[in-house]
Amino acid sequence: MAVGERSIFTAPFVDYLFQVEFIDFPTSENQESVVNQFQKLLTSGEVGAFIFEPLIQGASGMRMYSADVLDKLIAFAQQQDVVCIADEVFTGFYRTGKFLATDHLKNKADIIALSKGLTGGALPMGVTACTKKIYEAFLSEDITKAFLHGHSYTANPLACAAANASFDLLIDPETISQIKMIALAHQKFTELVRPHKQVKDVRSLGTVLAIEISSSGKTTYTDSLRTKILEYFLTRNILLRPLGNIMYVVPPYVITKEELDHVHQTMLKFLNSL
Amino acid sequence: MAVGERSIFTAPFVDYLFQVEFIDFPTSENQESVVNQFQKLLTSGEVGAFIFEPLIQGASGMRMYSADVLDKLIAFAQQQDVVCIADEVFTGFYRTGKFLATDHLKNKADIIALSKGLTGGALPMGVTACTKKIYEAFLSEDITKAFLHGHSYTANPLACAAANASFDLLIDPETISQIKMIALAHQKFTELVRPHKQVKDVRSLGTVLAIEISSSGKTTYTDSLRTKILEYFLTRNILLRPLGNIMYVVPPYVITKEELDHVHQTMLKFLNSL
Repeated sequence: MAVGERSIFTAPFVDYLFQVEFIDFPTSENQESVVNQFQKLLTSGEVGAFIFEPLIQGASGMRMYSADVLDKLIAFAQQQDVVCIADEVFTGFYRTGKFLATDHLKNKADIIALSKGLTGGALPMGVTACTKKIYEAFLSEDITKAFLHGHSYTANPLACAAANASFDLLIDPETISQIKMIALAHQKFTELVRPHKQVKDVRSLGTVLAIEISSSGKTTYTDSLRTKILEYFLTRNILLRPLGNIMYVVPPYVITKEELDHVHQTMLKFLNSL
Repeated sequence: MAVGERSIFTAPFVDYLFQVEFIDFPTSENQESVVNQFQKLLTSGEVGAFIFEPLIQGASGMRMYSADVLDKLIAFAQQQDVVCIADEVFTGFYRTGKFLATDHLKNKADIIALSKGLTGGALPMGVTACTKKIYEAFLSEDITKAFLHGHSYTANPLACAAANASFDLLIDPETISQIKMIALAHQKFTELVRPHKQVKDVRSLGTVLAIEISSSGKTTYTDSLRTKILEYFLTRNILLRPLGNIMYVVPPYVITKEELDHVHQTMLKFLNSL
């Protein structure tokens, strides 16, 4: 919680969170200044780890940024012996079109966090994977060196079985071609709605599509459009949970082309209704 | 983590834990002084909540204490408007012979934490239940008043279904008579081994049985007896995970009388082997 942006989710706990430095979100305009800001922080020698959502920041608004800038940040961090942690909870398991979002990069993270797609969303499970170097820092005959932070359901057998079964389905060629179908349909729809007068921004990467709707106020999680979007789609048999004025779609890989077209067309109809 | 005892589990994180006041573990000897200590802390006006494992402290060594003293503490706390939180993760679902350990009390907690027995250990799930008064403090049209601290798998449908199915089995009269069978067998075995020269203390409550073995050192989680006990029982087809020199049994309610007798007899043989 401490490493995420301070927001309404963390407000009640803010006194108990440790201090974290945030860098600006990298856009096509500010890339150089973000890299400079990052390098300045790291050369202070007080930074232990760099944690990031690779390529897409999910709950903060499906914000997308370039692999190029992230590659530069990781390269500099690793040169300074700063541990790089990729939060792939949302982006992992082909969400961005590749197995991991960090597969779009030249430089690799030292630690990755996985969940959601790990069991296809069927059972609660998470994995923290790391490089051999990190693993060996905990490997010892001395029990106090071990990573003792487990819980009652660590390695739950049924969740592990679900993850294995889900992975078999995931790497099936039929699933891979479904992922390509979704990505292509999203891209085409992106171009179609981009000129729409209600569209402030539209972006897609792999199976993720996000439309930022022109809203009277700032783009926030609690924007009043949230309730309106939720109701509009629910009454049309589509479960779509907006982030404020950001309408996004992250379809299950079993969706048919017809179902996906229906989702896209309903999004267009909603935009026309505004 | 902050509200638990500082230990090898919390040592790497100790700088990030908020301050908590601990009271002494209540025994038959110190009951009055513990109550005094507690009342002094609460009358400072700086205590917001009283959190406890009711009747049995699990991972810290299966330490058992009387319902009478806990009743006194809760009564005083509620009189001072201090929220009482019962951690029933280990003790819930008939572990102590009653549905909840707090069912042994006259005074009830304001919040209870449940897990483990909730799904019969089959699927990862936890519940935080509370009184209407606590619930209403979060009930509002204002989203910032809501308890927003959820996660990806909140109310996972399969885990909920497992919890319902497990609960149906739990309240079946056959299960209730199994629980009574286990409790009675534990009690009898407790009396049998109490005089054993290797037994420092033996205690049971409901389906929980713990034997504290006379050990050269202090009673700790990392006592070397741990490895010895684990291996001895595993080679005899019994999975028994000791807490240092504390050998304990918390059988599944489906265990047969014959299987339970085998466990007890193996414990006796182990004590004789020392």
